[in-house]
Amino acid sequence: MLNRVYNFSSGPAVLPEAVLLKAQEEMLNYCGSGMSVMEMSHRSKVYEEIIYGTEKLFRELMNIPSNYKVLFLQGGASTQFAAIPLNIGNKSGLVDIIGTGMWTNRAEAEARKFCAVNVVATSKDKTFTYIPETKREDFSPNADYVHICWNNTIYGTKYTDIPDVGNVPLVADMSSCILSEKIDVSKFGIIFAGAQKNIGPAGLTVVIIRDDLIGLHRESTPTMLTYEIQAKNDSLYNTPPTYSIYICKLVLEWLKDLGGVEKIQEINERKAKAFYDFLDSSKLFKATVYGKDRSIMNIPFVTGDEELDKKFIAAATEAGFVNLKGHRSVGGMRASIYNAMPEQGVYELVEFMKKFENK
Amino acid sequence: MLNRVYNFSSGPAVLPEAVLLKAQEEMLNYCGSGMSVMEMSHRSKVYEEIIYGTEKLFRELMNIPSNYKVLFLQGGASTQFAAIPLNIGNKSGLVDIIGTGMWTNRAEAEARKFCAVNVVATSKDKTFTYIPETKREDFSPNADYVHICWNNTIYGTKYTDIPDVGNVPLVADMSSCILSEKIDVSKFGIIFAGAQKNIGPAGLTVVIIRDDLIGLHRESTPTMLTYEIQAKNDSLYNTPPTYSIYICKLVLEWLKDLGGVEKIQEINERKAKAFYDFLDSSKLFKATVYGKDRSIMNIPFVTGDEELDKKFIAAATEAGFVNLKGHRSVGGMRASIYNAMPEQGVYELVEFMKKFENK
Repeated sequence: MLNRVYNFSSGPAVLPEAVLLKAQEEMLNYCGSGMSVMEMSHRSKVYEEIIYGTEKLFRELMNIPSNYKVLFLQGGASTQFAAIPLNIGNKSGLVDIIGTGMWTNRAEAEARKFCAVNVVATSKDKTFTYIPETKREDFSPNADYVHICWNNTIYGTKYTDIPDVGNVPLVADMSSCILSEKIDVSKFGIIFAGAQKNIGPAGLTVVIIRDDLIGLHRESTPTMLTYEIQAKNDSLYNTPPTYSIYICKLVLEWLKDLGGVEKIQEINERKAKAFYDFLDSSKLFKATVYGKDRSIMNIPFVTGDEELDKKFIAAATEAGFVNLKGHRSVGGMRASIYNAMPEQGVYELVEFMKKFENK
Repeated sequence: MLNRVYNFSSGPAVLPEAVLLKAQEEMLNYCGSGMSVMEMSHRSKVYEEIIYGTEKLFRELMNIPSNYKVLFLQGGASTQFAAIPLNIGNKSGLVDIIGTGMWTNRAEAEARKFCAVNVVATSKDKTFTYIPETKREDFSPNADYVHICWNNTIYGTKYTDIPDVGNVPLVADMSSCILSEKIDVSKFGIIFAGAQKNIGPAGLTVVIIRDDLIGLHRESTPTMLTYEIQAKNDSLYNTPPTYSIYICKLVLEWLKDLGGVEKIQEINERKAKAFYDFLDSSKLFKATVYGKDRSIMNIPFVTGDEELDKKFIAAATEAGFVNLKGHRSVGGMRASIYNAMPEQGVYELVEFMKKFENK
């Protein structure tokens, strides 16, 4: 009896049960090596197969062109908020950004330490409940890059179209949506993601970067934040987060077996539709985002009554639907339904909410 | 049948079998939470108990005074090589360093990006096979800090006495020896360590820092490298490497059950003595370090014949004594015998070497 709950945490988040079972099985002896993956030298043959295998799966699943490098780094998206301007913000020293909430706010503040920042558009006027429209003329033609956050974990919005930024490199934070839907990587200069939402455990950050953006860092960029150093060393300049990369590989294998990104996108859209359909028909629960910008990964909702929200969260927790509390900055509820959340979990939550509403 | 090998890797390195068994048992359901530690929100009550519990164990086992903070960070010691000057190298902008090999070389190069660096002493003249003697007058009285590497993983040397640096904060890299012997923390400004050698999996870096050294960073220090931000947020400014911290906690619990640092030091000294005694009596194998500076964690040795070294490594691997190859920069052999290497493993290796020598 596993007695597992349905875990709607926004991250670190639910992992596929098959992945955990495999990790459990291999914990003390990985593939006859006589040791745990945690105990392996990162420079051993057996580990090289893991890290290069993970890269290969990323390339395959995301259809990453050969002129992009895939880096396995540490420090989360927050470290990238500094690494990006320190690496590619040195030509004009101007950064364009689209403001869609806390994560772009943090990226903006960090970029201001090293660059001038121009906020092209923001959805702050409506508590970040939509993605601002932009057109090419809105962007600075001489910006070093444009920063966006593709899916907003806290507010539950996401881009549906890639902003037209002309020839300026587009940098996208995809922490909470990487591998959840098909993305044309060739349209981006950098895609980065903390692993702990959709691809693995906390402590791993994946950076997918176009070759021509490597080597543009300033002299004072810390070595560990320098893309050129990490790329030249295949992310093995120092010890990478070896076990997190291994779990990530198991997640990617699980996704591939399932049918890849196309298939998971279909499932994700079905899960999200079921949940939004219920919210839109409910008299008690309301979604906080409307229209095409709705995230298929993070769905915030409210009853409109804080006491009732609390009561609902407590009852849901009791029934095995956990981590439904909204982000501490916005309140209410939020169901994060990443790739690893089973369809059944969403349907059962909807059923539970229907019953709660009827009571 | 576990079929485990004796793993002498310099890091990531062997973990206590009891820790791996516990992690295996709890993989899908930690303490009735219905989820893996990997799946937990870092802001949940159940996870807070893990991270604060880990800190408590560190304080207890290392006898850390209350005017020190314990931070759980990412990026390895290499990231600290930049973080340290960016945080505490801003008053005189002068850093003193004692050169004892590759890791202090890297720390020196990184500090030079932000500060002036004075190499007080170095053991480069004898391939870093000893710790240079220093006296108080050798150090710059106005230096912002003195950087040393307490135990040198590659060359197998370690300090036995704390250098007398006067009132200047002493910063020590203890990646390969933290918790292996009693250390008077109050004599140091900062102690830092990558976890992957003696306390857990790769991807976690522990920083123990005296209160008065917090808040001295420059404005352009990346947020994630700023000790003040990390200290104020109890290492929860963003998502920490949650699972690595959990494994670290299991290792600390194992160490406490065993009898703490005093007890493990006794065992470590016994293991090292057995190995050095054999090397000193052998006609085939020779230690590369002599005298009081010998590390009790990393023991490099050679036969004096490269072909024979290779033959020995192959035979040892075949017999289940793995990762005995020396660092790629120095060659020969190296046995890393961290806390988690069972005494039996060392004795069996010595027996194997005796037999190899007799053949």
